[in-house]
Amino acid sequence: MKKMLNGTRDLQLFEVLESEVRSYCRSFPTKFQKATGYQLWDSNGNGYIDFFAGAGALNYGHNEPQMKQKLIDYIMRDGVAHSLDMATEAKERFLSEFNEIILKPRNMTYKVMFPGPTGTNAVESALKLARKVTGRQTVMSFTNAFHGMTLGALAVTGNKFKRAGAGVPLNHSISMPYDGYMGKEIDTLKFIENYLQDSGSGVSLPAAIIVETVQGEGGINVASSEWLKGLERLCKAYGMLLIVDDVQMGCGRTGTFFSFERSGIQPDIICMSKSIGGYGLPMAITLMKPEHDQWSPGEHNGTFRGNNLAFITATEALRYWKTSQFAADIAVKADKVKRSLQRIISNYPELNGEHRGLGLMQGIALEEGVAEQISQLAFEKGLIMETSGTNSEVIKVMPPLTIDMEGLETGLQLLEQCMNDIKLEARAPIANV
Amino acid sequence: MKKMLNGTRDLQLFEVLESEVRSYCRSFPTKFQKATGYQLWDSNGNGYIDFFAGAGALNYGHNEPQMKQKLIDYIMRDGVAHSLDMATEAKERFLSEFNEIILKPRNMTYKVMFPGPTGTNAVESALKLARKVTGRQTVMSFTNAFHGMTLGALAVTGNKFKRAGAGVPLNHSISMPYDGYMGKEIDTLKFIENYLQDSGSGVSLPAAIIVETVQGEGGINVASSEWLKGLERLCKAYGMLLIVDDVQMGCGRTGTFFSFERSGIQPDIICMSKSIGGYGLPMAITLMKPEHDQWSPGEHNGTFRGNNLAFITATEALRYWKTSQFAADIAVKADKVKRSLQRIISNYPELNGEHRGLGLMQGIALEEGVAEQISQLAFEKGLIMETSGTNSEVIKVMPPLTIDMEGLETGLQLLEQCMNDIKLEARAPIANV
Amino acid sequence: MKKMLNGTRDLQLFEVLESEVRSYCRSFPTKFQKATGYQLWDSNGNGYIDFFAGAGALNYGHNEPQMKQKLIDYIMRDGVAHSLDMATEAKERFLSEFNEIILKPRNMTYKVMFPGPTGTNAVESALKLARKVTGRQTVMSFTNAFHGMTLGALAVTGNKFKRAGAGVPLNHSISMPYDGYMGKEIDTLKFIENYLQDSGSGVSLPAAIIVETVQGEGGINVASSEWLKGLERLCKAYGMLLIVDDVQMGCGRTGTFFSFERSGIQPDIICMSKSIGGYGLPMAITLMKPEHDQWSPGEHNGTFRGNNLAFITATEALRYWKTSQFAADIAVKADKVKRSLQRIISNYPELNGEHRGLGLMQGIALEEGVAEQISQLAFEKGLIMETSGTNSEVIKVMPPLTIDMEGLETGLQLLEQCMNDIKLEARAPIANV
Amino acid sequence: MKKMLNGTRDLQLFEVLESEVRSYCRSFPTKFQKATGYQLWDSNGNGYIDFFAGAGALNYGHNEPQMKQKLIDYIMRDGVAHSLDMATEAKERFLSEFNEIILKPRNMTYKVMFPGPTGTNAVESALKLARKVTGRQTVMSFTNAFHGMTLGALAVTGNKFKRAGAGVPLNHSISMPYDGYMGKEIDTLKFIENYLQDSGSGVSLPAAIIVETVQGEGGINVASSEWLKGLERLCKAYGMLLIVDDVQMGCGRTGTFFSFERSGIQPDIICMSKSIGGYGLPMAITLMKPEHDQWSPGEHNGTFRGNNLAFITATEALRYWKTSQFAADIAVKADKVKRSLQRIISNYPELNGEHRGLGLMQGIALEEGVAEQISQLAFEKGLIMETSGTNSEVIKVMPPLTIDMEGLETGLQLLEQCMNDIKLEARAPIANV
Repeated sequence: MKKMLNGTRDLQLFEVLESEVRSYCRSFPTKFQKATGYQLWDSNGNGYIDFFAGAGALNYGHNEPQMKQKLIDYIMRDGVAHSLDMATEAKERFLSEFNEIILKPRNMTYKVMFPGPTGTNAVESALKLARKVTGRQTVMSFTNAFHGMTLGALAVTGNKFKRAGAGVPLNHSISMPYDGYMGKEIDTLKFIENYLQDSGSGVSLPAAIIVETVQGEGGINVASSEWLKGLERLCKAYGMLLIVDDVQMGCGRTGTFFSFERSGIQPDIICMSKSIGGYGLPMAITLMKPEHDQWSPGEHNGTFRGNNLAFITATEALRYWKTSQFAADIAVKADKVKRSLQRIISNYPELNGEHRGLGLMQGIALEEGVAEQISQLAFEKGLIMETSGTNSEVIKVMPPLTIDMEGLETGLQLLEQCMNDIKLEARAPIANV
Repeated sequence: MKKMLNGTRDLQLFEVLESEVRSYCRSFPTKFQKATGYQLWDSNGNGYIDFFAGAGALNYGHNEPQMKQKLIDYIMRDGVAHSLDMATEAKERFLSEFNEIILKPRNMTYKVMFPGPTGTNAVESALKLARKVTGRQTVMSFTNAFHGMTLGALAVTGNKFKRAGAGVPLNHSISMPYDGYMGKEIDTLKFIENYLQDSGSGVSLPAAIIVETVQGEGGINVASSEWLKGLERLCKAYGMLLIVDDVQMGCGRTGTFFSFERSGIQPDIICMSKSIGGYGLPMAITLMKPEHDQWSPGEHNGTFRGNNLAFITATEALRYWKTSQFAADIAVKADKVKRSLQRIISNYPELNGEHRGLGLMQGIALEEGVAEQISQLAFEKGLIMETSGTNSEVIKVMPPLTIDMEGLETGLQLLEQCMNDIKLEARAPIANV
Repeated sequence: MKKMLNGTRDLQLFEVLESEVRSYCRSFPTKFQKATGYQLWDSNGNGYIDFFAGAGALNYGHNEPQMKQKLIDYIMRDGVAHSLDMATEAKERFLSEFNEIILKPRNMTYKVMFPGPTGTNAVESALKLARKVTGRQTVMSFTNAFHGMTLGALAVTGNKFKRAGAGVPLNHSISMPYDGYMGKEIDTLKFIENYLQDSGSGVSLPAAIIVETVQGEGGINVASSEWLKGLERLCKAYGMLLIVDDVQMGCGRTGTFFSFERSGIQPDIICMSKSIGGYGLPMAITLMKPEHDQWSPGEHNGTFRGNNLAFITATEALRYWKTSQFAADIAVKADKVKRSLQRIISNYPELNGEHRGLGLMQGIALEEGVAEQISQLAFEKGLIMETSGTNSEVIKVMPPLTIDMEGLETGLQLLEQCMNDIKLEARAPIANV
Repeated sequence: MKKMLNGTRDLQLFEVLESEVRSYCRSFPTKFQKATGYQLWDSNGNGYIDFFAGAGALNYGHNEPQMKQKLIDYIMRDGVAHSLDMATEAKERFLSEFNEIILKPRNMTYKVMFPGPTGTNAVESALKLARKVTGRQTVMSFTNAFHGMTLGALAVTGNKFKRAGAGVPLNHSISMPYDGYMGKEIDTLKFIENYLQDSGSGVSLPAAIIVETVQGEGGINVASSEWLKGLERLCKAYGMLLIVDDVQMGCGRTGTFFSFERSGIQPDIICMSKSIGGYGLPMAITLMKPEHDQWSPGEHNGTFRGNNLAFITATEALRYWKTSQFAADIAVKADKVKRSLQRIISNYPELNGEHRGLGLMQGIALEEGVAEQISQLAFEKGLIMETSGTNSEVIKVMPPLTIDMEGLETGLQLLEQCMNDIKLEARAPIANV
């Protein structure tokens, strides 16, 4: 069993100089220095296993050696670092490889847009395009969706606290029940179709449906393949574009490169960011079917849409997808996580846990407050795990996809120890809240 | 005199795979490979003088050697690359140095927020905060303003084409005439105050005024110091926050670190991006007076708000501001540019040029179509210059601030040659349109 | 059996001079001249039984003799006709009698507002007030709701065609499923509560719920008393105001003065218009619980909010409610209508009719197109009936409440004849579409 | 000189039962009973001269004898009172006479719409239509405009207090400076055109401009004929519709039937209400050029759009316009008012009055607070006058157009007495506030 962390954690400078908006540094209150693969070290030399993976931006782990080498080589030879949307060799190579390794083998024909290097930018560009292509304004989104923090993306995000931050009403969106939101017995697709086909429903025909195939921030809610296919059918029937926000679930997080592969759908627009850059460098792409590429030049732009350092690492990251081995490895690890979580749940029935998720986006839903306690305990033991769900009720297991079996095992053991500690606390005469 | 460019420019792959939204690669149609300081080279070995500077993201030039070294060192030692808003040593050092080198010597007390690594993100966060602090919704912006492409920032941007791209109405903003917009004889401040104080004006009191001290995209329009002071006075009188968008004009572009230093105002909120990262890496900060730091933790967030590679180069870039030498150097170069442009204007009276700008954000306003021709001619001669203004009527001289006198001289000579070519064309029997 | 109508129907002048927006004159294409009780006559002397009752504005029939006499007396003695919201004797008497005859016996304490003489005005004032009292912006409305045609009321109306007429997006409202909208087995209240209590639902807490207890325009959908009580409970639990739009269902249409009496709820705000004036004269009132009367003087106004001629007839109309006799009479007639409609439905099973409604707001839902044919046939036979529902699929029986049994009988027989004609047509070798 | 008013003014019942929103009954705190021509009487037998004219709804005076007789005849013979938009003889006659007496002699070809019986309804219908015809959303309105209290009309109204009453943001409108708003030396038309033609102005092309030729509520601001013509020119140049809101200024208030006749413009859409019904009965019409009549049937509707009693009096009112005599009479009275007001202003230079207006819409702008005092004093002397302007700084002379010279004289003398009383007060040692 791992010892508790050493050293003082002097974060005073952050408290004085950085805005109150800071957040993860409150959950993981130490100063990080170094990282490789699935491990992080702080200034006091404490090591941490990373079951957080940069909220999905580090699917290939920290400072992956081959990407690192390519990155250094590029910088050393004075490769263009910043280029807006001018043509560069680095960008050309990314486009070419992405097409060869990702799109072609999946029989996908898409144009690639560089909308600015963040997920919210990809979403904003997707919403603009869908509205332009259809000439409609409303976009249908889902309960517990998370799509970003700029005004357009925020309008299709479910979280009330985040929405309230806008300070203005968020309009031109309609929030429909996600798969399973109304309980297992009710098919929310049917409800949605009612609203679309009934000319008295008060809802105008949307330009698009924007959906995550698994809602990560929303509590690890998995949409069934049938439901996703149903959405695609509705989109075709009512002239809407289907936008899949694969910012967090893409790049292998759920087991395949695109998270929707399991369902067989072909979205009209796909938003990617986070791990697309490979190394945790800011980058985003928006994919669109060629017939929807109705942009005028410069109609959407952004200073950092040509982050060539990210193109270098992004291209290198594609190497993982050249064969089916990587997906097969993820499947093995996912299975291990699933079995471990199920065992933990059954070992601690008092905690009333519910397994959630698939691929390496799994977790346990717990009673309110418990997941946050576990996250805190885990941190003390050297394991970084975040919570999700509206009330932070889900503890998330989300390691780099490249984690080895030993790291996975160790992390899961630490998680189990936290469950045990919680249970012990629950039994103790005076509860520690 | 420089020869015309060599080689074929094979951009076919971009045409096939990249979205029609691409823009600068149409103005500068070649594939770039390498860059240092104020120079770029394409795949055919052609060299270019850079009077564009990444639209203001490369104030310190391409691949500045000291930043480059620090960057490589950090990557080599597996420094944390991606960290969301967790505390890292790289971030701590940036915060500390920014406070010591920039804020303290200017008697400025501000909290720093990392809103996501783009200018539009900084603007979105500023708008949210101003609305939260004041409890009001409307934000006053200006004719020909440019603040970004996500929905909140777009609502305070003036350009109709960009606005139309939203596909939904852009609300909660009011566009007022910028300094000089109604001609020299009319004081737009007075007009604005009328609207604020008259309870019949149809305009509710705004949460904030957002302003660029010089409008770069809008055509290099310079607001006078008196006008900026007047805005500050109006903000105090009517309980509005003053937001300066220093994304493009900050980091020395107009001659001082903050562009508003010449006016002596102290904005409530300051948005910075582009050159803040030093090396062209995506980074943005939002500065706010401590009393306005009313954020709840996580109320605004973003995956790439902890781009540590940018923190490393950003910290190194601050070195330029440790003494007053850098500002003094910029002043000398600015003066040279000014005299050259004025001479060019007087040498080619037929072109009816008007000098615009200050610092190293200068240009010549020309009749519609001419500036675009010059930009194209310049590219053929190996000089990268962009246009600005609603109708692209202004040719922009915007080199890296670190350019040496020789580079500056060469670029300005190439510009003059373009003017001459245009003039010759104008005289030629058959005009080339 | 009644003969077909006589005479030419010269509506040419309307076609030339009146806007294409005209509507009922297309369904009932003749020129009306005279009317009493439940009967109308056109310029050719044709008589019509009125099962339409001014869309609910003529609950006491046309030109009711006692109101008519009071009206003439008032005009003859030069009583003030128009008075904005100045105090007049006519208004005082209405207020006093409304309080004595309607409010007090029902243990209701409400303030009365005169918001302008139309239903949509009453709704606009109710929405403003609810937003002011709660400081919230969104209002929850229902599928197939109808609340009016001005922009605020239209935003809470369900019909897509009407909504599209706005020409701008209709915001700050959320359309929830009405009682029964998702089928009998699904409790829409539970769905609504989910959205309210889940902080990830994408819906901010509404200022108010606005509801019709029976949706007239929406297809005669009756909300159960339990559902209405549930809405009241939700309003209390989530700090929302409950607004009942009793514009069409009030004044006895469903059997009691207020349509919600059957459910025992006490709405925070009640909108009334149509029959409140008694004689078909424009008038509306908005009732609010005294604690919600947070208006500033003149915060909502309107030129015709003091229509004294309507106050005179409105006061006289209250006479009907002095005893329980009127309600008892309505119940007898409602029962007769119900039995007749059920018999008709069972006599013509091919027409697949479904009984809808209660009180003297009843009808038969039919397959698309049939109800409109019946309305047309009925008109030819001298019976005025309109359709409702999103696709005009419901034929509406909505006579004046004062109709006698003979008139009711005759009208119902004519309706049955229409059903028979339709059935005959259906059997005929060549269908007449 | 008139004595002060007699009797108690028992308004307690209104205070208890009517909403706090009531307004004019606070300015004129007595209970009115009877009225003819330009005179009103209260329950205590006090008589009042009416310089208010129902805020413009009583241009033909109270209970005009010929309209009264026609109204009684129609009611007596059981003419249809309420008919939605069905064809009636009363409506046909109004349409026909309006065309013959008003439109044809002015060479105007317009279709007539009955949008519901209030001014705000007429405005809402005009805005909808302009948006439909142009496919645009924004509407340009003016500082200090007043167009109504429902959400669409409120969005083009200038008054902040009224706007705030909406409780939601009012969008899709832009408030431009009215003629003279920026001082005499600045041509606001030029400013407006700048915004329209500059693609960087932040303002999208509007669907329409809505304007009052004289702003009554806004403080009696008169637009010059040149300015109105300029608006018409801008509308043609930029594909916008010109909407004149003639609700208060129409029906002769400014000297001609339509208020814009002095300028020679031909608006695309005209909104009328208030005095169009003649007798103070609720009625409104929207006139549109035939090519703009692109309504679908029922796209805008309303229960009381067929107020036949108003059609009867409206038709009778048209009699006034059969010859040029009525306009000539108004001109004589207007001249008398103008001379009287100018004399009063020069007699009391301490009060710093400024003459405003034309026709029988005139007034005196005074220092804040003075106009309200005068209104109160006038009421005590038996003269009903309201104030207007954002700060109620203008005292309004707005008698029925049918007032005789004696009545006019008496009223103006009472006004002069009030000025004298104010002046005396000002001199008194202790000011009575």
